Amino acid sequence: MPILNELFQKKDLKGIRQWVTDTGTLQIAETLERIEPEQRAVTFRLLPKSRVLDVFEMLDPTIQQSILQSLRDSKVREILEQMEPDDRARLLDEMPHSIAKMLLEGLSVKERKLTSILLGYPDGSVGRIMSPEFVELKINMTSKEAMNKVQRSGRGVESIYSLPVTDLNGALVDVIDLGELVLANPEDSISTLVSQETYFVSADTKEEDASRLLLETGFMALPVVDSDKRLVGILTFDDAMEVLQESDTADILRSGASEPLGTPYFSASLFDLTKTRAIWLLALALAATLTVNVLGMFQSTLQSAIRLSLFIPLLIGIGGNIGSQSATIIIRAMALGEIRFADVFTVLLKEFRVGLLLGIVLGTLAFLFIGPLFGWDISTIVFLSMISTACLAAFAGSILPMTAKKIGIDPAVVSAPIISTLVDASGLIIYFMIAKAILGIH
Amino acid sequence: MPILNELFQKKDLKGIRQWVTDTGTLQIAETLERIEPEQRAVTFRLLPKSRVLDVFEMLDPTIQQSILQSLRDSKVREILEQMEPDDRARLLDEMPHSIAKMLLEGLSVKERKLTSILLGYPDGSVGRIMSPEFVELKINMTSKEAMNKVQRSGRGVESIYSLPVTDLNGALVDVIDLGELVLANPEDSISTLVSQETYFVSADTKEEDASRLLLETGFMALPVVDSDKRLVGILTFDDAMEVLQESDTADILRSGASEPLGTPYFSASLFDLTKTRAIWLLALALAATLTVNVLGMFQSTLQSAIRLSLFIPLLIGIGGNIGSQSATIIIRAMALGEIRFADVFTVLLKEFRVGLLLGIVLGTLAFLFIGPLFGWDISTIVFLSMISTACLAAFAGSILPMTAKKIGIDPAVVSAPIISTLVDASGLIIYFMIAKAILGIH
Repeated sequence: MPILNELFQKKDLKGIRQWVTDTGTLQIAETLERIEPEQRAVTFRLLPKSRVLDVFEMLDPTIQQSILQSLRDSKVREILEQMEPDDRARLLDEMPHSIAKMLLEGLSVKERKLTSILLGYPDGSVGRIMSPEFVELKINMTSKEAMNKVQRSGRGVESIYSLPVTDLNGALVDVIDLGELVLANPEDSISTLVSQETYFVSADTKEEDASRLLLETGFMALPVVDSDKRLVGILTFDDAMEVLQESDTADILRSGASEPLGTPYFSASLFDLTKTRAIWLLALALAATLTVNVLGMFQSTLQSAIRLSLFIPLLIGIGGNIGSQSATIIIRAMALGEIRFADVFTVLLKEFRVGLLLGIVLGTLAFLFIGPLFGWDISTIVFLSMISTACLAAFAGSILPMTAKKIGIDPAVVSAPIISTLVDASGLIIYFMIAKAILGIH
Repeated sequence: MPILNELFQKKDLKGIRQWVTDTGTLQIAETLERIEPEQRAVTFRLLPKSRVLDVFEMLDPTIQQSILQSLRDSKVREILEQMEPDDRARLLDEMPHSIAKMLLEGLSVKERKLTSILLGYPDGSVGRIMSPEFVELKINMTSKEAMNKVQRSGRGVESIYSLPVTDLNGALVDVIDLGELVLANPEDSISTLVSQETYFVSADTKEEDASRLLLETGFMALPVVDSDKRLVGILTFDDAMEVLQESDTADILRSGASEPLGTPYFSASLFDLTKTRAIWLLALALAATLTVNVLGMFQSTLQSAIRLSLFIPLLIGIGGNIGSQSATIIIRAMALGEIRFADVFTVLLKEFRVGLLLGIVLGTLAFLFIGPLFGWDISTIVFLSMISTACLAAFAGSILPMTAKKIGIDPAVVSAPIISTLVDASGLIIYFMIAKAILGIH
């Protein structure tokens, strides 16, 4: 990177050409994601012809798009034509519709058809990321015949590692792995290789659900069928893992109150970074004005015992943290398929008990520390408030994400920061109500 | 699940045996992870012999361990003997050392040797999760000879999809995919299939780094070499993905102020759930006592202008959220390899500018809303405090995780909740300093 920067400062094109020849593919791809678009275009155009596609395929779709914009039309078509249909569909998906349409028209009939098939499925469905190219075997073939078919028609197909097997009516029987076929006795029928259990997904299944299923089964690929149960594609392991990494990134960022950037950090502009964060902050700030109102309501209570104000940040901090914990644990367990909506009462009960236990532990510690320094009345108020807030926070932190999922909202949106903010206001109300009762303020 | 519960209530063993026969492998595995250990042991023992290993391999290591504890010794050995060496190493790793040693001694010499090789590498290293079994090809073989070798010695080997190629001195040349070999001309030499670039990792590389590299390269496996650069194993795609899912789970949970449970939600006891959370809460509560002290310092200021207390939760909420955003974005970008420590100044500058922009936007909104209702003096104080706190939070949120990583601490530990708590106290100091200056309080 520093070297490439120096070469650019010296405008040493020959040096840059040398650099792209000497540097590893992965490192070139990583460097391209970290430099300015103009330098990126120049560097990319200096790549040796044999490495263009390798480097291109390693890039993030947003970076791919920025490079295509800098290339001449004929070059763009050449690259698109050589990409795998599902990678190409993902790239076209991120482009403005009119440009995507124009590019699609420039492709050969076969490649265009494969991409159109993928683009016909709803956004976020497994239909968008499956491989529409596969080698289909018939159940009555011998292993030798099947192997011949793979060798004859496997070239140029994205994955020959997972081979769907259909019966004589074309209905899906199972998917066998290339490895099993290679190791099978050549004279044996394919029927000896199929298992009793077949896993498959429908093309409109959510890509995340299908990917999670693939990971759980431990297979290399899942067959994808249409509404008439006809085989339309296969979901390969590598595409599934990209989906899961992206969805985990989205969950992680939402839990930190950001929207996913959709592009590597350095290629995101200051404006993009600010925008994805400002939306959340505004929502949270709006929710936080509740606390201003709550404190306003109890201003006279506060005036008569200013000591109460000292523990406001401590109390809402602990409430917020317990709520965050519940929300994060529940959201992750739901994403991994460990918890479903049917478990809602079991989960609520468990979280409530965890909240109660945590409240008692922390409340007791607070009681013992605060008492001698600030008085036992304040200490008792904090003790009781902490237990109530902890239970409330654990309850809110588990029910909100589960309800969100049930009504079709991404549970990560109702994550830690939202829950802390909501718990803040209700925690304050509890605190002042208890304070008024104990201190005898009216 | 409800059905299995009913069968257990009726003590209908015959019905349970029928259930495990009729139900899919994946669903059995999922159900076993959600029921009580006693019921789990009974259900597992009723599995038809042919399905025992399939079901067992789909389970989480902690659940596998609980099942093994309920089985007779001979049955335990049988299951262990059939597992893949890397899966077995992971299972033994989670067991008390003395039991693991005993079980290891019960294995056949070959299987014990393979597992010992894996267990000899440091915890968390790629050596622990690699496959020590692979089919090695020589550079001077023809494709046909190579294919014969795969068919001859590939049975029982975990993965024959990635085939390391060595030269005549035994040094690693490249790894070729089974698919390439299947599609190659039988008379061609293997040397025509190897690429110019070879990626490999050392056995003591961190498993997460190696897995991330494998995902980035898009290959099916990475060769693993020892300190003398001899080939000792291969890291397969599916094992790498399990590592990344686990590390993402840890990041997600830490960002919500929990330690990873290391076991599925329902099988975690109330005590475990509380313990993993209490540690964080105590640390955070300790940090939050800072706010009590800060507020104590400014108690007289607060007494003379009680209106100041209304905006404390709002102000520290926004500071905390901006800090969380920076921390989460930076931690994720580091995990994905988009940011390295060398970028620290670029990142700090960018985050500082984002913080400033966010502070100005939110501060201006707050200024306009608070002014008419609570007075323009308070409104100005909030405006200035919000800008300073936003900059401070963005700065802390980016420098702390990067420094943690640099000194070898998991950056996710210095994540959102820690940063919010630290920003709380400093935000309050800024707020009261500005308030004292503007309101003229001494």
